[in-house]
Amino acid sequence: MSAHEALEALREHLRTVQDLDAAAAVLDWDQATYMPPGGAAARARQMATLGRLAHEMRVSTRAGERIDAAARAVESLPEDHPDRALVRLARREYERARRVPSDLVAEIRRHTAASYVAWTEARPRGDFAAVRPYLERTLELSLRYADCFPDRSHPADPAIDENDPGYDVASLRGLFAALRERLVPIVATLARRPPPDDGFLRRFYPRAAQLDLARHVVGALGYDWNRGRCDLTHHPFMTRFSVGDVRITTRVDENDLRSCFFACVHECGHALYEQGIAPDYDGLPLGLGVSAGVHESQSRFWENQIARDEAFWRWCLPLARDAFPAQLSDVSLEALVRAVNRVEPGLIRVQADEVTYNLHVLIRFDLECAMLEGRLRVADLPDAWDERYERDLGIRPPGPRDGVMQDVHWYGGLIGGYFQGYTLGNLLAAQLREALEREQPGWREAVGAGSFGGLLGWLRERVHVHGSRYEPAELVVRATGAPLSVEPFVRYLERKYGSLYGVALGSA
Amino acid sequence: MSAHEALEALREHLRTVQDLDAAAAVLDWDQATYMPPGGAAARARQMATLGRLAHEMRVSTRAGERIDAAARAVESLPEDHPDRALVRLARREYERARRVPSDLVAEIRRHTAASYVAWTEARPRGDFAAVRPYLERTLELSLRYADCFPDRSHPADPAIDENDPGYDVASLRGLFAALRERLVPIVATLARRPPPDDGFLRRFYPRAAQLDLARHVVGALGYDWNRGRCDLTHHPFMTRFSVGDVRITTRVDENDLRSCFFACVHECGHALYEQGIAPDYDGLPLGLGVSAGVHESQSRFWENQIARDEAFWRWCLPLARDAFPAQLSDVSLEALVRAVNRVEPGLIRVQADEVTYNLHVLIRFDLECAMLEGRLRVADLPDAWDERYERDLGIRPPGPRDGVMQDVHWYGGLIGGYFQGYTLGNLLAAQLREALEREQPGWREAVGAGSFGGLLGWLRERVHVHGSRYEPAELVVRATGAPLSVEPFVRYLERKYGSLYGVALGSA
Repeated sequence: MSAHEALEALREHLRTVQDLDAAAAVLDWDQATYMPPGGAAARARQMATLGRLAHEMRVSTRAGERIDAAARAVESLPEDHPDRALVRLARREYERARRVPSDLVAEIRRHTAASYVAWTEARPRGDFAAVRPYLERTLELSLRYADCFPDRSHPADPAIDENDPGYDVASLRGLFAALRERLVPIVATLARRPPPDDGFLRRFYPRAAQLDLARHVVGALGYDWNRGRCDLTHHPFMTRFSVGDVRITTRVDENDLRSCFFACVHECGHALYEQGIAPDYDGLPLGLGVSAGVHESQSRFWENQIARDEAFWRWCLPLARDAFPAQLSDVSLEALVRAVNRVEPGLIRVQADEVTYNLHVLIRFDLECAMLEGRLRVADLPDAWDERYERDLGIRPPGPRDGVMQDVHWYGGLIGGYFQGYTLGNLLAAQLREALEREQPGWREAVGAGSFGGLLGWLRERVHVHGSRYEPAELVVRATGAPLSVEPFVRYLERKYGSLYGVALGSA
Repeated sequence: MSAHEALEALREHLRTVQDLDAAAAVLDWDQATYMPPGGAAARARQMATLGRLAHEMRVSTRAGERIDAAARAVESLPEDHPDRALVRLARREYERARRVPSDLVAEIRRHTAASYVAWTEARPRGDFAAVRPYLERTLELSLRYADCFPDRSHPADPAIDENDPGYDVASLRGLFAALRERLVPIVATLARRPPPDDGFLRRFYPRAAQLDLARHVVGALGYDWNRGRCDLTHHPFMTRFSVGDVRITTRVDENDLRSCFFACVHECGHALYEQGIAPDYDGLPLGLGVSAGVHESQSRFWENQIARDEAFWRWCLPLARDAFPAQLSDVSLEALVRAVNRVEPGLIRVQADEVTYNLHVLIRFDLECAMLEGRLRVADLPDAWDERYERDLGIRPPGPRDGVMQDVHWYGGLIGGYFQGYTLGNLLAAQLREALEREQPGWREAVGAGSFGGLLGWLRERVHVHGSRYEPAELVVRATGAPLSVEPFVRYLERKYGSLYGVALGSA
């Protein structure tokens, strides 16, 4: 078998697996957008079948043989050649999948599906007792999953490495401790100032006009509507079926202009990443965003660094006024920018401003580590949660619904491995902004004129096009010139909010 | 292994295969409704992967072993027990799939996909020369497919048996000859009468109100919106993902009230069948409509026997007038009933009235048989088509676009095995109506009052609930008391159109 044939055989295997994953993604999108209620039971079975077949294919002996043959075929290629990266990704996925017995995979899938249903029923009434046995079992399964990786230092490490390759609890703790130390005083200072008025954002904004405005804006940012679409759902998400079909979803609150608008821009950020990956990589592990953190850096970059910037609203406010003349005619640029950057410690992560947001993440990260280490029992989780909110954010949840039961993650999946990505993304977004500032000093003028091509082109070249070719840590250095650090993010907050709130923050 | 275990092992295998089929159906529905243009290339690959995996599973040695074990487990059960039917269906599907080599399956899939693309490009300009080489290859592949079944009498028989089990060319020729002999004089008589005015149906009918009316009507007929939905597409179809998710699609012509309305009622007829199958059969071959002909009998029953009946419009015309007061206020019940039953020999099958419709089918059936028998070359097909239209319908297509290139079937699939289902369905629909007339003599009064429950309940009990438990021929006898014949359909046409047109038709 020639080197070419060995690689093609591997690609064929990988494409088949990704075809099954893409089919499952279509079923998932349909379930979240259009599926009638009666379809749920069979849909769960269909998704489980696709997941099981993909897993069987991933761990097959034939997959291992193809990876070995392809590895021999690429050994003389340069270290950073895409084909070498492909073999590296394929081997990592294969070895990770082989370590987890199929029975455990099936058990986790069954249990998390049942747990998710229990959570959706119990959350509205804040009934933690109803989900507690599920969560205890989830913790047990999370530890069994971790035990499949005997080399791990911490039980959260395998799941973290799956979503954010190269990171582990030890490295994240250092990063997060440095961040928390800088964040808590900023939040405390801002919380003492009167929050800016945002009442005009809570006027009545009709659904259709909100969607039209959001669609127009994401199109202007660079989202390719020939390769995507936007639909309504409960919990907005982005999904990729191929480089030619990258969809976003949103929701509308007719009494708050922000909900639909920022959800669309956020998901558009994810989608611009996926639409920008080299088409040659499509159907292969190379052709997906490289990690949760890098993905979140893209969504947060557009949502916060761009769409909450004064320059952006110089362009967008006239559009918004055209869409909503009665609601926005009396609103100045300054008032609008202050309103969309209102800082207020709250209970709900997904509604948090960009200053307090990471504190929500850090609480979850610490608590899940404590559970996995056996330092915190599930029964004691609600109290630990409430105490930590009081300490870090100065407010105590009135009950579990908007406290420990607010996020789906622990109830619909394993414990550990996911929350860190949000904060990694926020840090990287700020670091990308500093790099952009150095290399395209005129970027804010372009944004103010509604011209996003230069900015998108820069992200495409630095981040998007590479897909999963480089490890996240290497990608960060290539894109920004330095390893990931908390400093750019802290500098960004101090400058922006120092100016918006007229206070001295940290060293700014 | 106990009998119960053997059956459960077979069910598990069959459910997995049907999960893959259902996933492919979701991808297909998405492609026909919401997929952005950029998604097409990868979608084709994803669908091919699902089809290939389902085929591999269908023909696996393990499948055969499970069928054998289950067959031993059910041999002491009564002949018509659902578990025996399940084993029979599984064995037929297995043996049919095993006869066709995987390479040929893949070749047919590749070729028909390419042929379909060529047809969509060539049809608008009526360029038969562009599709002729594809069609010649399709004919060759159709014969190779037929050769996989050495016991067949006619090369169309295996494909016919797949869609309409129990039928073959010999039996259909007898049925169709009898039908043609009765139809041609009816058409000739009606064609000599001035056609009723239908100009008021071609006024401007806004899209949203058309969809609202159609949705209201199919809901009243009994379509369960909790287990379905209706979306827009180019070529309306019904699709089932499970008994809890049976969707219909439609299209809207704002200058013709009929297009959306009758498409919805037609697809609703298919959907009522699938929604009415015993839920216990869901995920198994038992839980699907039994044949193309029986399926079409359900869609045509609601579309023609019900929704073109005077009693139906006694109930529906006031609803339509509420939706379109300006367009319909001057239209009487009599005028409307005559307009929706206008008979006019035309070129296009899908636009044909119920009198001429079967002549279109019979032309296609005869021509495809002639091609498969080697009596008609592809090169001579357009002339043969045009001559036959002139002979049977009295009109000659001006070119291939609205002649031999109008239907997708030969261009997107094999030649043979599909068209007969339309006429079998029309015949059965009329035979069901006669049985209903005997058993529920008051059915037209109920329909006139907008009460469809008794009618639907009767169809549920006689046809729907059984799914594929009985062979089509047995189902027809159980449902109507007699084997399928052309007489009820001819009687129905003669009575209805004799009265509408004020002429004596046949024996009526």
